Amino acid sequence: MASPTVKSILILGGARSGKSRYAQKLAEASGKMPVLIATAAAGDDEMAERIEKHRAERSAHWRVVEEQIDLAGALVREAAADRVLVVDCLTLWLSNLMCAAKEADAAVSGLVAVLARLDGPVIFVTNEVGLGIVPNSKLGRAFRDAQGRLNQSLAAACEIVLFVTAGLPLQLKPSALALRL
Amino acid sequence: MASPTVKSILILGGARSGKSRYAQKLAEASGKMPVLIATAAAGDDEMAERIEKHRAERSAHWRVVEEQIDLAGALVREAAADRVLVVDCLTLWLSNLMCAAKEADAAVSGLVAVLARLDGPVIFVTNEVGLGIVPNSKLGRAFRDAQGRLNQSLAAACEIVLFVTAGLPLQLKPSALALRL
Amino acid sequence: MASPTVKSILILGGARSGKSRYAQKLAEASGKMPVLIATAAAGDDEMAERIEKHRAERSAHWRVVEEQIDLAGALVREAAADRVLVVDCLTLWLSNLMCAAKEADAAVSGLVAVLARLDGPVIFVTNEVGLGIVPNSKLGRAFRDAQGRLNQSLAAACEIVLFVTAGLPLQLKPSALALRL
Repeated sequence: MASPTVKSILILGGARSGKSRYAQKLAEASGKMPVLIATAAAGDDEMAERIEKHRAERSAHWRVVEEQIDLAGALVREAAADRVLVVDCLTLWLSNLMCAAKEADAAVSGLVAVLARLDGPVIFVTNEVGLGIVPNSKLGRAFRDAQGRLNQSLAAACEIVLFVTAGLPLQLKPSALALRL
Repeated sequence: MASPTVKSILILGGARSGKSRYAQKLAEASGKMPVLIATAAAGDDEMAERIEKHRAERSAHWRVVEEQIDLAGALVREAAADRVLVVDCLTLWLSNLMCAAKEADAAVSGLVAVLARLDGPVIFVTNEVGLGIVPNSKLGRAFRDAQGRLNQSLAAACEIVLFVTAGLPLQLKPSALALRL
Repeated sequence: MASPTVKSILILGGARSGKSRYAQKLAEASGKMPVLIATAAAGDDEMAERIEKHRAERSAHWRVVEEQIDLAGALVREAAADRVLVVDCLTLWLSNLMCAAKEADAAVSGLVAVLARLDGPVIFVTNEVGLGIVPNSKLGRAFRDAQGRLNQSLAAACEIVLFVTAGLPLQLKPSALALRL
């Protein structure tokens, strides 16, 4: 489906949907050197445990780079024709931005802007968080909205978009749908 | 995929999934006069801000009709062969019904009943809200269940059903799936 | 799509997505004797009401077996070439396991292990719960993670996997997607 020249893939999914593992397998099957751009900060025991679980699922030959805020800069530094970058994940990056009181929409625009000039392919992992009932807190609603805008912007910019459920992908883009009224 | 005679489309999606914008683009591409049936009430600053954001995304030549309760009546009044109606959204309508202590399931049946006799096409926008963990409150669970029943009823009645994620559509109906045990 | 030899189907969906009804219709259309393996416990009025609603949607000739913990045992006992089993649902089973302080991941492995040696087909119904914002409580997050792992394990083991929204199925497995970088 995708030619060898695919430059950007967005993988959407819920919590524990298998989206990270799916991205890892794609990267490992590419024959290129896989580079993980990890956005998580091991701030508490629960998050440290999640990070460790993800690490145990990866094969040993990954290069791992941690970047919590300047994702566009990390992509430009790390991208190369013989590498494939995996950004895991945009949801934690968004959370980092909001905690640091950064302008999230501007940061997303900056991220999208560097995509076209990367020297190798990149796979983004992100959460879909808008399919439950309305969150009780204003912060929860603001985060949900910012995540939705981020996902729409990245989906518009990436060549291929997948939605992963229970480890299985649905292709959202390119779309076979051609609907007219 | 859809012929020019499509009469009813249901667009499901999460919060900030791009479902409203997708519906608007469909309507604007139809060549007919777009009519927005808006079910939102600008009850607080947050909602007023959301309404304003949606307004800014629409082109200027929309006719806008506000209807918070009697949606079936508004459809019958507004439908015409040279118009396309966009109902945005059924989730706020359901919320309005429940706040006004109306019988939601009966209102949904009434809405479905008028579909067949409308003089022009209609696009419904609705939220999927059942894909998070069980809500803490009884009201939250009741709303989630009512929304799920509404979505099933409308999906059964509409000719075309789409699920929009990150601005991208998946076609749920007509379905290519023919499964037998 | 599925041949008459299909042995295992997993149906994922949200709350009130129509997933139970879809499973029931599949079973009733098979020509085999339908057997419901019900995992719900009528612990309170709200749950008793949900159970009664589901019962009212089924035709009268179902055999119903209640099993809250030992699902693998129930499948082995009930499976037969002229029967089709419907397990509704794995989410309540997981909840039962966690309430009884059982090791959920081990129970899931035990369930997957018996699949290959059942004498007839089985349809599992399960919830996707990871598509809202992060739950406030540690228990909520633990349940969401356990449900996600369960869904991935069953999806890997079953021949056919569907995602039902508003009563309409999307096919996740077998997948038409063949993506390579």
